[in-house]
Amino acid sequence: MSAEQPQQLPDTSAISFPDPGNQGEWFTYLVRVFPHHTDYYGVVWHGTYLTWMEEARVEYLRSVGVPYEDLVALGCDLLVVELSVRYHRALRLGAEAILKTRIFQTNGVRLCSDYLLESNDGKELYLSATTVLVPIDSDRGKIMRKLPPTVKDALAKITKFTA
Amino acid sequence: MSAEQPQQLPDTSAISFPDPGNQGEWFTYLVRVFPHHTDYYGVVWHGTYLTWMEEARVEYLRSVGVPYEDLVALGCDLLVVELSVRYHRALRLGAEAILKTRIFQTNGVRLCSDYLLESNDGKELYLSATTVLVPIDSDRGKIMRKLPPTVKDALAKITKFTA
Amino acid sequence: MSAEQPQQLPDTSAISFPDPGNQGEWFTYLVRVFPHHTDYYGVVWHGTYLTWMEEARVEYLRSVGVPYEDLVALGCDLLVVELSVRYHRALRLGAEAILKTRIFQTNGVRLCSDYLLESNDGKELYLSATTVLVPIDSDRGKIMRKLPPTVKDALAKITKFTA
Amino acid sequence: MSAEQPQQLPDTSAISFPDPGNQGEWFTYLVRVFPHHTDYYGVVWHGTYLTWMEEARVEYLRSVGVPYEDLVALGCDLLVVELSVRYHRALRLGAEAILKTRIFQTNGVRLCSDYLLESNDGKELYLSATTVLVPIDSDRGKIMRKLPPTVKDALAKITKFTA
Repeated sequence: MSAEQPQQLPDTSAISFPDPGNQGEWFTYLVRVFPHHTDYYGVVWHGTYLTWMEEARVEYLRSVGVPYEDLVALGCDLLVVELSVRYHRALRLGAEAILKTRIFQTNGVRLCSDYLLESNDGKELYLSATTVLVPIDSDRGKIMRKLPPTVKDALAKITKFTA
Repeated sequence: MSAEQPQQLPDTSAISFPDPGNQGEWFTYLVRVFPHHTDYYGVVWHGTYLTWMEEARVEYLRSVGVPYEDLVALGCDLLVVELSVRYHRALRLGAEAILKTRIFQTNGVRLCSDYLLESNDGKELYLSATTVLVPIDSDRGKIMRKLPPTVKDALAKITKFTA
Repeated sequence: MSAEQPQQLPDTSAISFPDPGNQGEWFTYLVRVFPHHTDYYGVVWHGTYLTWMEEARVEYLRSVGVPYEDLVALGCDLLVVELSVRYHRALRLGAEAILKTRIFQTNGVRLCSDYLLESNDGKELYLSATTVLVPIDSDRGKIMRKLPPTVKDALAKITKFTA
Repeated sequence: MSAEQPQQLPDTSAISFPDPGNQGEWFTYLVRVFPHHTDYYGVVWHGTYLTWMEEARVEYLRSVGVPYEDLVALGCDLLVVELSVRYHRALRLGAEAILKTRIFQTNGVRLCSDYLLESNDGKELYLSATTVLVPIDSDRGKIMRKLPPTVKDALAKITKFTA
């Protein structure tokens, strides 16, 4: 196994994101591979990417004025209910990469996100993924019927149009 | 939020596993929720489930005579290339649950697994998931054209028929 | 590096546990190394051991009638305030080992634990460690002046005598 | 429990770092608490801090011209053999803090590090810690008798004098 090259994982095509027309802009989040991210095989353990996807989501919302800890203090939690990941190339110890994320609203309260993890020059694709989150009223333990206004307004800023 | 009840996450139907006829038997793996598995919301963090899915997969293979460390020593690694998870109910601190797993072979070397995380009495479904793994020749860093004989033979034992 | 042998980490002597006379019996907890426990070096990542130490502590308390989730429901959390670990030999992928734990009370409410991670035959020592936990009243966010009676009674069972 | 204030964990004094005169300058590394860092209690899980200590160590070495992945490629791994942590205040979801780290050499090849995790204004101390690492020759699986020249030279830059 070549130590210089990220290893290509054949056989799996990237997730193709359907374009509902309102996904908004890509937010970019820089990641770096530390020893605790890797496994015995010398590359990033497949579950580690979920920590980066969460970080990118949270930082995207913060960047548009919705710090996640403020939402939580208001009694709203965003729980992941669906997740799909395709692994295209393995990322090695010490590597840097860019995780691109966009967030948009579909079917009422569901928050959808797309992810692309790419090399800094954009030439390599390491991972493509999607998640769906729903807002939970933490006092009642039930899904909210409407998104909190701060989230709805923030999404309106970052997507072309919301439902 | 009721502390006694696992919380239902609405809006997402379970993954329906198509039956190609050769998925074999369900292997059961007991999990228990410790503090390090949870997050601030008081339930299992969504990425934690991937550690249990990996453990169940590895123990299933061990139970049919394929200790994963032996495969690795022979130069064969099984890398996750696809992953899909649906979260139905959140699992709380201290809870026990049963992770059911089955492994089967499709499209040549691809190893598919289905997962159902259920309450001990089988009445609650917490999570449904699928993964796809491919065998990598660790010396060459390339996908193997054939599964190692020990894996192929083990799969023949646990599936009705293999391709 | 020999793949068969756990690797010895020289230069560090085991933590010597002073004997205050009341540490009680060792509780044994079996651990197994899965891929997600390892790092690029092929052995268990040094932070992973803390998850096992927590699991052993929680299972010890459960075995003497104090399920940790019940303590939490009563408003008592046990927070780690001190931690020391010495790493003697690295544990490899697929290895099994026995984590021995004992819990005792010193200086009023402080719960001390000692840990020894050993090979199944007791001939190899992988890790020695100690932790100190304190009980927190989760409503007030302050340390409790006395241990909850269930914890105090359980400790009385597992230690020779308590302060 | 006050949601606004980090919670003080009483009863444990900070680790006092003896001053051998050559610890060099403090390197500062910014950390932010994401959901995956927390546990059910709403604060950072005690093992999470080890990931940040590792990241700070690796970034410190990178900043003085020793990318860790280059060391690994040369056959030198730095393994943690000793670790001590004291937890003074719990860090909450969304919080930012500064992890200060310094690295110095003692007793030949042992690399010692001190850590202080502080609030941005330096008024709160969350954690104090120390680690000891040793360089391993990864081909032979044995401790190196001398530090690799690049590490030795880098340490000479960041400490007042080396042994």
